[in-house]
Amino acid sequence: MNEHTIGVAPRAVQREIDAVPEVVHADVPPRMTLIDYSAQHFVERVIDDPAECEDYRKADSVTWVNVDGLQNAAVLERLSKAMGFHLLTLEDILNTDLSPKIEDYGEYLYVVAKMLEVDRESQRIRVDQLSLVLGPNYVVSIQEEAGDPFEPVRNRIRNAAGRLRRSGADYLAHALLDLVVDQYFTVVDWVGERIEALDESVTEDERGDLMQQLYALKRAVIFLRKTIFPLRDVVSTLRNIDSDLVRESTQPYLRDLHDHVVQLADRIDTGRDLLSGLQDVYLSTLSNRTNTVMKIVAVFSSVFLPLTFITGVFGMNFEFMPLIHRSWGFALSVVGMLLIVSAMLGYFRYKRWL
Amino acid sequence: MNEHTIGVAPRAVQREIDAVPEVVHADVPPRMTLIDYSAQHFVERVIDDPAECEDYRKADSVTWVNVDGLQNAAVLERLSKAMGFHLLTLEDILNTDLSPKIEDYGEYLYVVAKMLEVDRESQRIRVDQLSLVLGPNYVVSIQEEAGDPFEPVRNRIRNAAGRLRRSGADYLAHALLDLVVDQYFTVVDWVGERIEALDESVTEDERGDLMQQLYALKRAVIFLRKTIFPLRDVVSTLRNIDSDLVRESTQPYLRDLHDHVVQLADRIDTGRDLLSGLQDVYLSTLSNRTNTVMKIVAVFSSVFLPLTFITGVFGMNFEFMPLIHRSWGFALSVVGMLLIVSAMLGYFRYKRWL
Amino acid sequence: MNEHTIGVAPRAVQREIDAVPEVVHADVPPRMTLIDYSAQHFVERVIDDPAECEDYRKADSVTWVNVDGLQNAAVLERLSKAMGFHLLTLEDILNTDLSPKIEDYGEYLYVVAKMLEVDRESQRIRVDQLSLVLGPNYVVSIQEEAGDPFEPVRNRIRNAAGRLRRSGADYLAHALLDLVVDQYFTVVDWVGERIEALDESVTEDERGDLMQQLYALKRAVIFLRKTIFPLRDVVSTLRNIDSDLVRESTQPYLRDLHDHVVQLADRIDTGRDLLSGLQDVYLSTLSNRTNTVMKIVAVFSSVFLPLTFITGVFGMNFEFMPLIHRSWGFALSVVGMLLIVSAMLGYFRYKRWL
Amino acid sequence: MNEHTIGVAPRAVQREIDAVPEVVHADVPPRMTLIDYSAQHFVERVIDDPAECEDYRKADSVTWVNVDGLQNAAVLERLSKAMGFHLLTLEDILNTDLSPKIEDYGEYLYVVAKMLEVDRESQRIRVDQLSLVLGPNYVVSIQEEAGDPFEPVRNRIRNAAGRLRRSGADYLAHALLDLVVDQYFTVVDWVGERIEALDESVTEDERGDLMQQLYALKRAVIFLRKTIFPLRDVVSTLRNIDSDLVRESTQPYLRDLHDHVVQLADRIDTGRDLLSGLQDVYLSTLSNRTNTVMKIVAVFSSVFLPLTFITGVFGMNFEFMPLIHRSWGFALSVVGMLLIVSAMLGYFRYKRWL
Amino acid sequence: MNEHTIGVAPRAVQREIDAVPEVVHADVPPRMTLIDYSAQHFVERVIDDPAECEDYRKADSVTWVNVDGLQNAAVLERLSKAMGFHLLTLEDILNTDLSPKIEDYGEYLYVVAKMLEVDRESQRIRVDQLSLVLGPNYVVSIQEEAGDPFEPVRNRIRNAAGRLRRSGADYLAHALLDLVVDQYFTVVDWVGERIEALDESVTEDERGDLMQQLYALKRAVIFLRKTIFPLRDVVSTLRNIDSDLVRESTQPYLRDLHDHVVQLADRIDTGRDLLSGLQDVYLSTLSNRTNTVMKIVAVFSSVFLPLTFITGVFGMNFEFMPLIHRSWGFALSVVGMLLIVSAMLGYFRYKRWL
Repeated sequence: MNEHTIGVAPRAVQREIDAVPEVVHADVPPRMTLIDYSAQHFVERVIDDPAECEDYRKADSVTWVNVDGLQNAAVLERLSKAMGFHLLTLEDILNTDLSPKIEDYGEYLYVVAKMLEVDRESQRIRVDQLSLVLGPNYVVSIQEEAGDPFEPVRNRIRNAAGRLRRSGADYLAHALLDLVVDQYFTVVDWVGERIEALDESVTEDERGDLMQQLYALKRAVIFLRKTIFPLRDVVSTLRNIDSDLVRESTQPYLRDLHDHVVQLADRIDTGRDLLSGLQDVYLSTLSNRTNTVMKIVAVFSSVFLPLTFITGVFGMNFEFMPLIHRSWGFALSVVGMLLIVSAMLGYFRYKRWL
Repeated sequence: MNEHTIGVAPRAVQREIDAVPEVVHADVPPRMTLIDYSAQHFVERVIDDPAECEDYRKADSVTWVNVDGLQNAAVLERLSKAMGFHLLTLEDILNTDLSPKIEDYGEYLYVVAKMLEVDRESQRIRVDQLSLVLGPNYVVSIQEEAGDPFEPVRNRIRNAAGRLRRSGADYLAHALLDLVVDQYFTVVDWVGERIEALDESVTEDERGDLMQQLYALKRAVIFLRKTIFPLRDVVSTLRNIDSDLVRESTQPYLRDLHDHVVQLADRIDTGRDLLSGLQDVYLSTLSNRTNTVMKIVAVFSSVFLPLTFITGVFGMNFEFMPLIHRSWGFALSVVGMLLIVSAMLGYFRYKRWL
Repeated sequence: MNEHTIGVAPRAVQREIDAVPEVVHADVPPRMTLIDYSAQHFVERVIDDPAECEDYRKADSVTWVNVDGLQNAAVLERLSKAMGFHLLTLEDILNTDLSPKIEDYGEYLYVVAKMLEVDRESQRIRVDQLSLVLGPNYVVSIQEEAGDPFEPVRNRIRNAAGRLRRSGADYLAHALLDLVVDQYFTVVDWVGERIEALDESVTEDERGDLMQQLYALKRAVIFLRKTIFPLRDVVSTLRNIDSDLVRESTQPYLRDLHDHVVQLADRIDTGRDLLSGLQDVYLSTLSNRTNTVMKIVAVFSSVFLPLTFITGVFGMNFEFMPLIHRSWGFALSVVGMLLIVSAMLGYFRYKRWL
Repeated sequence: MNEHTIGVAPRAVQREIDAVPEVVHADVPPRMTLIDYSAQHFVERVIDDPAECEDYRKADSVTWVNVDGLQNAAVLERLSKAMGFHLLTLEDILNTDLSPKIEDYGEYLYVVAKMLEVDRESQRIRVDQLSLVLGPNYVVSIQEEAGDPFEPVRNRIRNAAGRLRRSGADYLAHALLDLVVDQYFTVVDWVGERIEALDESVTEDERGDLMQQLYALKRAVIFLRKTIFPLRDVVSTLRNIDSDLVRESTQPYLRDLHDHVVQLADRIDTGRDLLSGLQDVYLSTLSNRTNTVMKIVAVFSSVFLPLTFITGVFGMNFEFMPLIHRSWGFALSVVGMLLIVSAMLGYFRYKRWL
Repeated sequence: MNEHTIGVAPRAVQREIDAVPEVVHADVPPRMTLIDYSAQHFVERVIDDPAECEDYRKADSVTWVNVDGLQNAAVLERLSKAMGFHLLTLEDILNTDLSPKIEDYGEYLYVVAKMLEVDRESQRIRVDQLSLVLGPNYVVSIQEEAGDPFEPVRNRIRNAAGRLRRSGADYLAHALLDLVVDQYFTVVDWVGERIEALDESVTEDERGDLMQQLYALKRAVIFLRKTIFPLRDVVSTLRNIDSDLVRESTQPYLRDLHDHVVQLADRIDTGRDLLSGLQDVYLSTLSNRTNTVMKIVAVFSSVFLPLTFITGVFGMNFEFMPLIHRSWGFALSVVGMLLIVSAMLGYFRYKRWL
């Protein structure tokens, strides 16, 4: 499946806001951490062999296995076997080009989402695929890259008095997705700020590349739509799923999460509308500018072409010409020119052409 | 949740019709008023401690608690506890960046709506979030800012003979939402008038910023869509909700409210269509203007370039040139020029180029 | 409710096709007529006091009360009481800014529709709101303005042998709506003819205001969509309503009515598509015209600028210049100019620039 | 109903691809033919009086009555009575401005479709309305105009061994509709070929009316959409109808017919997309052409205006001027001009302006 | 049915990306291969007479008949008879202009899909129609052209230990469709790369045909939409079909296939959005270029027209003119000209016109 992991859209979008074209795929070796907890007990450790997970999984306490990096397919295969995943789940975990989706395998739910992050230095949006497997009393989270944003959740688990310690695996899954969605807000706000910035400079276009900037932001919005909109359905399915894996008590939190994703979708659509409005403003600015430049040409043509013609007339070498031998000839010609020019400008002004 | 309360869209839209970019967030301390009434009795007082509400809530009479301002989260938390709200309801009340929605918590319904107001001085639309909680015999209304528009409802309650005094909490909630929707009509009409004004000046564009004005109105319409369209679903859900909190006798009033929101949606969409039509008119006006200016250039080029050439010919310093030594040479050259010009202009007119 | 009866859209649209901006609201006092009939008997009279209707309503025969003009709210209130209307029905009757809709109040159905008429003299579409109340054996029709188009229905009732005399109140309501829809055909055809007329003149634009005409027709089409499209749902609801008020035998006639409204919707959408196509044609005509004008400038610049330069060269006052003292100098320069011009024009023609 | 048979769209579209504006309504008197057949027997005759149909209808054999021309409403009324049609069916048959539709009258199904034909000589699409009435053992087909395309079906019936002879009236109706749809393919392909032809000439526009051609084809596509798309629903309703009139064994043939109509809809939409793409290409070609013409002007202005200025300088009549009395003055000025021109052209080329 | 196999769209699209206009229809004689297998046994042979298939079909083992080429209708008719296909299935197999679809004939499922391939040499997308018939224990695959891409599946069958050998005919059908979809990825990626390439050159347009390239890619995207989107419904129907022909155990694989097609649809839509964005960029680039060229004209007109006028004034032949007899006259005129020019340029710069 891996051969078509780099497709039109993601690769294209990646490039849109930056100079560095490749997706960042740091070559960090996979790292597995395991947290096992209940209201009373708490274990946190790094594991090397996926088989170690198996005992924890069988215990009643909630087990969270987090994997950073997909480079070592063999390890993931062993993990997959230890946790009892279907072959297609393993394939999906290894395919980093999936759209967000949820699948019910009966014994567990499989969720795919994208993690976004703004790299402000390079002005890029980084994408990272997250696979979440929610079983009866475990959660496995697998990320494409090292450097996960889940530390806040870990801290909440370490805190023995927190709600997480008293809740099940489904609440843990919700907490992880909630963090992912919080990241989206940062990214969407960042794009929003760039749109605002463009809004202020749209009638100026100092660097002459405003349309390219607009296009880059359009690509970013297309990309965000593609990434975030399907999550609406994922969360919605999660809320209405007919499965014991999601408890009644987690429902309000999922409804809350759903609200957030809907809010994001709203903002993205607003961003799109604003961009299309800005484009119209920009194009009409271009037309106005052409008009202004044309008017300069028109004024100079209509004033100086007739005048130059008159000087030409009196510059002809005919032997017998009127006026040229009179002492007031020159003055008369100058007065005549002035009259012609003011008549003309007055006429234009009257016609509102200029 | 509060960290992403200021998002792309609202902030952006706010700015659109005005010079002052920030949203108006007056720093007025929260103010709580309580009205408790039934057909027979009526109490109205300012309260300091939310705990005071609890007794009123337990009584059979209808209790309306109104809170102005969200600055003091602690007070709201105590209120929330006193009224028995879910934790997520409290979070939503404090988050001023929600889209209109309705949520059924079983014991109460939670409604979010936006209150709009035109600040004619600064030419801005002010937004204020309204949270409504409808319980079996109470309504809690919480606004982002002080200065609510609910005085007419208070007067109707103070009037012992009014329908409100004889009806339940659901009718009170309807009355509040009805006022909110009435405000929308004012705002939508205001935007409509501005569109009309633009309509009359679209072919002139004295100030050269017509496209920006169009864009500002487009943003206003996008903003109104975002704010008012979801309310359709909210009212519709309220009508069809399977809950004892909404009585049969309130149904016709909710249907009426729904009609009003649909009417608003209609007008907003008409406004959008008109704006897009106006934009087309404006752009074609620009093109026409370019054409007119070009024609001036064309007329002057085609008339005076040939003439100047002829004067140039007779201005050359060749020793042996025809005509120049004849007394009628000058007159002939002038006649020739006139003929050429009229032939040319006639040809253009015939070809309908000019 | 009356304060927002004049909204963005209707007022705006009204203006679109005419010079006179206000909606025509003739100040004619309300006029009530009553027709009571069955297969055997027929009564037709003008009534002054709505209470007179009450006895007729109670009888088994079909009663049709028609009211022209909404100026006298008190009379309408009394009528409303005499017929037993809900308070909200009265409010809706007095609000002339409603969208077409149907409401089932159990004892009666309330229908709102718009009556359209072309005022060919002033080139305007006149709008009039029609409220229809269909009870078990009565129909009340209330119009905003005097001058109803219902005379043909009255004649059919006066004819003792007609189908109307043998049918119930629901068939009468159908007959009235059918007349309203027939008026729509006239209006839609009138707009269609104007589009056709534009179609023929689109490449000419003698008066220079073609885009404004296009826009006016676009507004007319937007207005017709808004007015006629909701009627589809009204008639559809009427067909499928679960109410004894609409008899089985009236069904085929309602289906026929529905077909007509669908046909109208079709034509309106076609009109919209044609207008948008015409706009594209018009804009490309503008571009073509600019091209033509530009070409004139280009031809004259490219021919006469070089020639004038050459005359300028030989017009310089250097003491020692080639050719000028030769008798064939002038002829040579002329030949040279001709060669240069023809070379240039040939090159342009070869390059297909001109 | 007849008064609004000529509406915006059909009339308008008719005109679109041709010079002759009226719809062709040949004044041929109506002609009725009757074919009555079963596996064993076959009768074919021209009938004058519709009453003759009645006996055939009552027999068990399949009866097909075909009527060409709607001019004689009285004959159609008698036919309608003889066959037992509802009054509204008769009205619909006489109204030639219907959209394709199907109606279930219980005893019979009423289908309206449009027959299309390309008149290659006049480059027009001819429209003809077809009404089909399918009863238990009869089919009545009524066409607006003489000259039906049903001869192939007649031949299949005349052939005693064919499937038609062994099948019921529903299969006959399918065969007629199939022929109608086959005609559509011819028309759609014809339009497709014209689009292809345009595609090849879009960057040339020799005659300067390319946009009008595009518009004419757009109108044709709008017209085909209006005519063919509703047939999808008609055939789909026919497939799923809950009526004894359509036998189980005819189902696969109706599914096949449905496939064809869907295929047509596909092609029409593709045609629309191609046209809109071609329009974009055309408009950008116009812009490019303007650019090219502008560049000619720019080159000549920037080269010859400075040169002419220089010749002007040395053409001034000042008594004391530098250079003019030197023998190498002229040569120097010429060299100077050449230098200036090449510097300028070089600079433009470097800036990539030209 | 064959007469309309070459329609608007496919033919048109074919041409879009290439110079060679015809669809490639190699005249290779049809070739039939048969593979019969179960977990234990495996037969692979070329067959000449379709009747040979019959015995294999009746056996319990899975039979796969593959036919390359539709030239010999008689052979296909015999095959159709041997396998017991409905007449309409045969017709569909022979009609190479179908849209992807699935049909349930009870005893077998009939699937139509398109096979795509990029011919990199001629820069064309080749289309090939694939008909798949899935019976209880057989699959018949029929392709328009020789040269199928199914060798990988054959190899998997030849491998006795593979999953295919242990699975039924439905899994074989899935494997074939999976291969077809894998080909789509190659084609979609190829189009994506071309869009990317355009993206980089959009502001340059060296060859002046960028809009045509954009249009060609638009056609390709329209074509891919038409070809791939209906497959979504086909696979979806296959998943939810109520038929014994598709086993429960094949479900996850079909879900996986569905995911892939959805992913493709996503990328195609992204491609469309990018193309429309690129077009906007291109058109604004054109406008900018016009502006730049216009500015050159404006600068030269506004600088040299006044200067030339001044030289003209002093070139007039009046006897009595000021300055010309003074020794500093020339110098003064030059200084005056310089002042005028710098004032003018300064003014323009101040006004930001240039």
